[in-house]
Amino acid sequence: MKPDPVSIASLTNPAIDDAQGLMRGAARVLASFGLAAIPEFSLPCGRRADLMALGPKGELVIVEVKSGAADFRADGKWPEYFDWCDRYFFAVSERFPRALLPEHTGLIIADGFGGAIVRESPVNPLAPARRKSITLRFARTAAERALRLDRLP
Amino acid sequence: MKPDPVSIASLTNPAIDDAQGLMRGAARVLASFGLAAIPEFSLPCGRRADLMALGPKGELVIVEVKSGAADFRADGKWPEYFDWCDRYFFAVSERFPRALLPEHTGLIIADGFGGAIVRESPVNPLAPARRKSITLRFARTAAERALRLDRLP
Repeated sequence: MKPDPVSIASLTNPAIDDAQGLMRGAARVLASFGLAAIPEFSLPCGRRADLMALGPKGELVIVEVKSGAADFRADGKWPEYFDWCDRYFFAVSERFPRALLPEHTGLIIADGFGGAIVRESPVNPLAPARRKSITLRFARTAAERALRLDRLP
Repeated sequence: MKPDPVSIASLTNPAIDDAQGLMRGAARVLASFGLAAIPEFSLPCGRRADLMALGPKGELVIVEVKSGAADFRADGKWPEYFDWCDRYFFAVSERFPRALLPEHTGLIIADGFGGAIVRESPVNPLAPARRKSITLRFARTAAERALRLDRLP
């Protein structure tokens, strides 16, 4: 017996996927590769990355979650994210029409519990000064969130 | 009428101070100076810093909390922390016998709600390679904690 695929449909609109669930699944995929991710990371340009992740050697990875074709088509600005990471992925569900997505980006297929990298991203290494400033921003953002969530016992 | 000072005595042993409370107070002091702190930060040498904080320009600060004179006297290894930060502070309560503490360290007097820096720390800048590796470790630790605490909605 084959288990049913896990539905990631949004509860409020089943025609699209649940973005939070996809984000959680994609974060787990990244974790399985040793990348520590934080959601909704504000970039110096003013945009927010759905997930920004930091690898053991300092590599920076951005993942944008798309809940459906309309969500992808409405976002003409995603190439701007290339300027803030070494690798860039879209994360979508199994039912997403993936032919829409550009070939020169990485691709994660996720559900609410995990997923897989089905296409690696090209690597475009950041300049050292930018890597340094983004890493510092990442560190301080993560620490502030951990402290706030923890509220220190 | 003058308010009573806030007691930070440990509930289980009122002769000493509550280390978690002091840690929380000290973390707030750091935050007021723009330093994002995470508790119980594991250093590459195997020791754990009570608080490791990261400033807006990448400065690294370690704070060790001492719950009483005995706690300080039992720890002969605190000078090792100098190798992992630019500035080093002890955080103690108002009643701690502060004459015990070495002059060449910073001093934070805290209670469970806040506190003040009563003596600045000398600055001993880290070498760039070490700063880079500690910042990366800090960032990944903080992100993992934020994600675990948050459990992504």
